[in-house]
Formats: sequence, structure tokens, C-alpha cells
Amino acid sequence: MQHGQDSEDFRQSPVHDDITALQARVDQLQLEAETANSRAVRALADFQNYQRRATLNEQAARVSGASSVAMSVIQALDTFDIALRATDANASAEQVLRGVRVIQEELLRALEKHGVVQITPMPNDEFLPGVHEAVMQQAREGVSPGHIVDTFQPGFILRGAEGERVLRAAKVIVAPKE
Amino acid sequence: MQHGQDSEDFRQSPVHDDITALQARVDQLQLEAETANSRAVRALADFQNYQRRATLNEQAARVSGASSVAMSVIQALDTFDIALRATDANASAEQVLRGVRVIQEELLRALEKHGVVQITPMPNDEFLPGVHEAVMQQAREGVSPGHIVDTFQPGFILRGAEGERVLRAAKVIVAPKE
Repeated sequence: MQHGQDSEDFRQSPVHDDITALQARVDQLQLEAETANSRAVRALADFQNYQRRATLNEQAARVSGASSVAMSVIQALDTFDIALRATDANASAEQVLRGVRVIQEELLRALEKHGVVQITPMPNDEFLPGVHEAVMQQAREGVSPGHIVDTFQPGFILRGAEGERVLRAAKVIVAPKE
Repeated sequence: MQHGQDSEDFRQSPVHDDITALQARVDQLQLEAETANSRAVRALADFQNYQRRATLNEQAARVSGASSVAMSVIQALDTFDIALRATDANASAEQVLRGVRVIQEELLRALEKHGVVQITPMPNDEFLPGVHEAVMQQAREGVSPGHIVDTFQPGFILRGAEGERVLRAAKVIVAPKE
């Protein structure tokens, strides 16, 4: 068995060891490539699922933000009905106006619950561009040049975890600069 | 050069061809595994970046939903100031109340802009669980059993692209079932 002897020799030769090692390396790399491939496929699939969910979550977050403010306003609106029902025919204008001020306060508190705060600068407050908007210039005693004389229309700021955001600048009258 | 002759023989042998093929396969698989690995790493990195962004987007969407309703309410609130300023000392209670109703309408319109609609069922309307909440039973002529007699407190519904959502059920008086 010349041939048998040859292959017996070959199995014990260093060349055979090389081939075995290479074959093992091929098997190992094949497994590695497959594993990496399925990791990539899974990551992409997870990503796409997440994208779909994220879009829905974003829509839901917008609606939930809007609803929560709406709900607070709705509760304040109930005060209107109560006020309108409770006011008897003999109420004075003064009494009704007091009621209006109460409702206004109620609505402002409803907004405050959501971080919305009214800005009503006081005379001689520093003028802050962005937060204040000058609609008129007028000198007034005791007010430094360029400073606020009076608030014409209140502004609103939204205070959140991410910082402050001006919803509407307060319209103010400023003293002219020298 | 016995050894030289040996290696020359070996380079031309079928065993050498096997080793060359295996080596080529190893190189190819190594490249495949690397490519798949970097695809997986990139997909995971993209995914993580997207997750961070999505969380921020969600927060921003909530704030933007809340702010947009708040802005509409703020504009309605201005009407209060105008009303309070414009009302002269001689206004009658009746006139002030009319003003209050105007402001109430204004606020309801502000909410409507965001899909928030008031529910005020009419007498003899069908009672819809979820949309209506029975707070009292009372028989009334002309109202079918189990139907609505009167609205005690209006409800609110949010109409959006995704359908309707009851923000608050309308509190109603229902006629008792037979």
C-alpha cells in the first residue's frame, strides 16, 4: 500500500498541520463573519423599528403637551360658568369686574402649572432685548435712559428643564438713550 | 540543493494549490468579517445617536404642543386686560357680563384652534359612556329613558389626525331607564 503509506506520511507532515490550521481558521472566520452579519442585520432592524416608534412617540408627546395645557385651561373655564351662574341680577359692575380678575388669575395660574410665566417688568427695570420689545419711547423722571418706563402688554416665558424660552416678548415703553 | 529542489516540487504539488486556495479563502473571510463588523458597529452607533436625538425631539414636541396652546390662551388673555381697561366706572353689571361671555368665547375658540372641542349635549341626546358621565338621574317629559336631560358641566374632546380623545367627559343628568 504505497499510497496508504504516502497519506499516512502526509497526515504526520508539517504541511498537513498547516492545512488543518488554515481549515480551522476558515471555520472560525466563517462563524465570525456570520455572527457580525447577523448583528448588523439585527441592529438595522432594531433601528428601523425604533424610528417608527419614535415618530409615533413624538406625535403623542405633542398631543400630550397640548392636552395637558388645554386641560388646565378647561378647568379655569369652568370658573366662567360658575361666575356667570352665580352673578345675581343685582350685582354691581364692580363686583362682576372683581370676578373677571379672579378668572384671569385662575388662567394665569393654569399656565404657570406648565411653566408659562407672565413677564411684567417694573419701571426702571433694565431693558432686555428678546425678553422685552420696545414699542414706544418716552422720558420719565426717575427712569434711567434706555430703561423701562412702563409695560404696555405683558410677555410670557416658558421655563422648562432645558432652560427658558420666550413665548412672547413683553411690549414696553422705554426711556430714550442720552 | 536538495532542499531547493524539495520546495520547487512542493510549489507545483496539489497540496500547495490547496494551501493557496485556503489562504485566499482566509483572506476573503477576514475581509467579510471586518466589513460585517464595521457595519454592525456603525448601525449601533447610528441607532444610539438616533435614540439620543429622538428623546430630545420628544421633549421638544411636548414643549411645542404645550406652547402652542399656551400662546393661543395668552392671546385670549389679552382680551381680559383690554376689557378691564376699557370698562368705565359707569358700566352696568350686564355690560360687564356680556364682556365676560365674549372672553369665554375667545378662550373656547383658542382651544378649538388646537382641536379641543366643547361637548354640550342637548336634551334627549343619546347617552354615550366615556363621552358623557351621568351625575344625576331625573325624569323629564319628552326625554326618552336613559337619554340626556341636561348638561351639568360641558365636556371636552380632542380631535387630531389619530382620531378623537376625550379630555373630559361632559357631566350630564340622565332620565332613568324604565
